[in-house]
Amino acid sequence: MEDCIFCKIIKGEIPSYKVAETGEAYAFLDIGPLSAGHTLVLPKKHIRNIFEADPKDLYPVLDLVQKIAVLMKEKLPCDGVNILINNGEAAGQSVHHCHWHIIPRFSGDGYKFPPAGSLSKEQAEEILGKLK
Amino acid sequence: MEDCIFCKIIKGEIPSYKVAETGEAYAFLDIGPLSAGHTLVLPKKHIRNIFEADPKDLYPVLDLVQKIAVLMKEKLPCDGVNILINNGEAAGQSVHHCHWHIIPRFSGDGYKFPPAGSLSKEQAEEILGKLK
Repeated sequence: MEDCIFCKIIKGEIPSYKVAETGEAYAFLDIGPLSAGHTLVLPKKHIRNIFEADPKDLYPVLDLVQKIAVLMKEKLPCDGVNILINNGEAAGQSVHHCHWHIIPRFSGDGYKFPPAGSLSKEQAEEILGKLK
Repeated sequence: MEDCIFCKIIKGEIPSYKVAETGEAYAFLDIGPLSAGHTLVLPKKHIRNIFEADPKDLYPVLDLVQKIAVLMKEKLPCDGVNILINNGEAAGQSVHHCHWHIIPRFSGDGYKFPPAGSLSKEQAEEILGKLK
């Protein structure tokens, strides 16, 4: 897609620190990393987000994510990985070409996601009433 | 797998707030939600994490995640979703049956992931030296 920075990276029109590439997916280092080795994996096809995706078009992304996660664990090496996909601006998506973050984690790195809340039966039933 | 709390939920031996189910995947409300509607989607097959997964076994999970994300946007309704998979204890995985978090997001909800760092050319080359 014209004007999409990630499409330009895939085409080589904008440079990137490429980690790997397949026929349908492309992986490169995030230049705003949450940890050392933070990598983005995306479909070569311009898909905006999970809402507009045909899941089948994301299978090759999942394939490459899995390979890179294993590689990170063996080669960085890291102790774990978070895989994160932000969909929509409200979820922190800034580039509207679906991308999967692989964030290497190291024991005791102190990186924390926000704390969890709780779920009452009433809240659960209200939500299920909407979703089911 | 015996002693896996998520296998027991899938089999109905432990109750859950079920959102949806397919032949190969199961979705239910997280009882420690990060936002209203926070849902977990998992393969019925016991797979520990992304490192040990055959990605093909996770395709049905991705299919169901995509359907539920669309449903959340239409029905909760939410403005975006974060999809998160924690792999390994160092990444915050507490139940060792691979599960995908779908976290509904609402404009202005103030939920924040930790701030991004930066990546120098030297750091990038060091990481690529390990991964490529």
